[in-house]
Amino acid sequence: MLALAAARLGFDVAVLDPAPDAPAARVAAKAIAAEYDDPAALALLAQISDAITFEFENVPAAAIQTLADLGAAVAPSGRALAISQDRLAEKTFLNAAGAPTVAFAAVGGPADLAEALKRHGAPLLVKSRQGGYDGKGQAWLERADDIDAVWRAAGAVPAIAETPAGFDRELSVIAARGRSGEVAVYPLGENRHVGGVLRQTTAPARTTPAVQSQAEQIAVTLLAALDYVGVIGIELFEQRGGGLLVNEFAPRVHNSGHWTLDGCEVDQFEQHIRAVAGWPLGPTRALARVEMTNLLGDEIDAWQALAAEANARLWLYGKTEARPGRKMGHVNRLGPLDP
Amino acid sequence: MLALAAARLGFDVAVLDPAPDAPAARVAAKAIAAEYDDPAALALLAQISDAITFEFENVPAAAIQTLADLGAAVAPSGRALAISQDRLAEKTFLNAAGAPTVAFAAVGGPADLAEALKRHGAPLLVKSRQGGYDGKGQAWLERADDIDAVWRAAGAVPAIAETPAGFDRELSVIAARGRSGEVAVYPLGENRHVGGVLRQTTAPARTTPAVQSQAEQIAVTLLAALDYVGVIGIELFEQRGGGLLVNEFAPRVHNSGHWTLDGCEVDQFEQHIRAVAGWPLGPTRALARVEMTNLLGDEIDAWQALAAEANARLWLYGKTEARPGRKMGHVNRLGPLDP
Repeated sequence: MLALAAARLGFDVAVLDPAPDAPAARVAAKAIAAEYDDPAALALLAQISDAITFEFENVPAAAIQTLADLGAAVAPSGRALAISQDRLAEKTFLNAAGAPTVAFAAVGGPADLAEALKRHGAPLLVKSRQGGYDGKGQAWLERADDIDAVWRAAGAVPAIAETPAGFDRELSVIAARGRSGEVAVYPLGENRHVGGVLRQTTAPARTTPAVQSQAEQIAVTLLAALDYVGVIGIELFEQRGGGLLVNEFAPRVHNSGHWTLDGCEVDQFEQHIRAVAGWPLGPTRALARVEMTNLLGDEIDAWQALAAEANARLWLYGKTEARPGRKMGHVNRLGPLDP
Repeated sequence: MLALAAARLGFDVAVLDPAPDAPAARVAAKAIAAEYDDPAALALLAQISDAITFEFENVPAAAIQTLADLGAAVAPSGRALAISQDRLAEKTFLNAAGAPTVAFAAVGGPADLAEALKRHGAPLLVKSRQGGYDGKGQAWLERADDIDAVWRAAGAVPAIAETPAGFDRELSVIAARGRSGEVAVYPLGENRHVGGVLRQTTAPARTTPAVQSQAEQIAVTLLAALDYVGVIGIELFEQRGGGLLVNEFAPRVHNSGHWTLDGCEVDQFEQHIRAVAGWPLGPTRALARVEMTNLLGDEIDAWQALAAEANARLWLYGKTEARPGRKMGHVNRLGPLDP
């Protein structure tokens, strides 16, 4: 979707992806099939590109740094990516920047879990610092007797222990920062997860001006602290009784921002290309209320019924194999904005 | 823009174009650089494609027929293309189908011009039957003394002589017909030409329900008569005192339909892909009033100012050379619909 947005603005796209038939490579002017940290591939990419970005947060941060060292205009920065790849560094950074999170403790081994239980009480959510997504590499610690089991369940690797967020619902905010420092923030989305996987985002979320304003403040603060260029996705917990905590941020276009494809004049993908290319940012107001539903696995077999829905816009990703739970596409259902 | 729409719906696109760096080839999964009537290239295209279409009306109609003969699901048909490529066949077909046009006469030589002057009076617009666009290959015949000069000015080739349309403004209607025969019609656009080249389309055009209804009736009639599949662009003259005449039709997505990219949920490009692929057609109502302006030649140098306009959506085509008058992109300026 980034490549499509770039093409619309007249840019040629070169895609570096280990899979030669990656969906993005099939809509790009040039495809480079190599590992993300392949030195020759990175050198070629730096040589032929006016600007470089990424849309997958498991690209090695060192590869992004390599591109920057080669003089490429790469954004977001390797630093922003590296912070987002380490849950402990991420929460530490967020707090230092003034963006509120749950309380947390670094965990190097079972002894740290015992200490964290003493300081923060039970339960604690233990997550590996790196890797894992959609709820993998996580375990709840309810009592001291379970410390060893939970340590193993979380992978027996450097971890973070977090206090419960005690939240009513998960919101997210998509924002962008341009090369000149200007910031654009989209209306909040409300997310519904099933089994740790995003199922549905409804946007603009029904919320108070105070909550939207707090989310914008968090986005502005975080983007400035990261000296960020591009689109960022920030996952938020709305606590019982109001107030937002940051769960995590993704230094890229974000699944919870797919509603902007049909709900805004300038969607998150074009916005990201504008930011990375040094263009002025576009407007972010919502033109419709959108319910975005991910199509997982063989749910895309319903394409014909979805395509026939008058108010539904269908996006299919061209992935070759519909494995169970795999995000194969999404549908945006449009309705009128609240008066 | 067709390739981008196809990609969004999960399709891979193969592009046949004589230019290896054609804009469409740079957003396609496969590029075949060959002449449009190259037998080997057509055979390859037929072999690898589930459906085939074209977006340029100067593709030889015989090439489309070749694809059909090879068993390919090609649409629109070679017949529709062939009719549109011959101004005499086109107007004859339109009249036979019940779609009104100006009066006209076939011109095989100067003697036919003399006869046409006698029957229809002056002035007459003389156009070559084939080729020519944007006002080229045309000349006005005002009096009998000029017959030889006008015959030469129109190319001294088989031609058509038309009576003046006497029109207030040019409108156009974009419509689509699916493989099951269902038809979808967009709101009318109002076109402004400068020097024979489309400069601006405003849509929905401010008009009466009777005129919109007559345009829809013309579209439905013509699409059925052609047994058409895909999007068609129909240029109309609105006569002084009301009533529409058909000027010509283009068997493809049309420049005067570019407003749908930002003015409708399903734009003409996605609509064409849906029709050609056998999908259900999408909705055609306007969500905004759009003023579409073509960016000709070095007008695209203003990209930065255009990109900064809050209500403007910019489309750049990635053509490598900005020759004077060449359509390099367009800008859609969005405003509210009339109440």
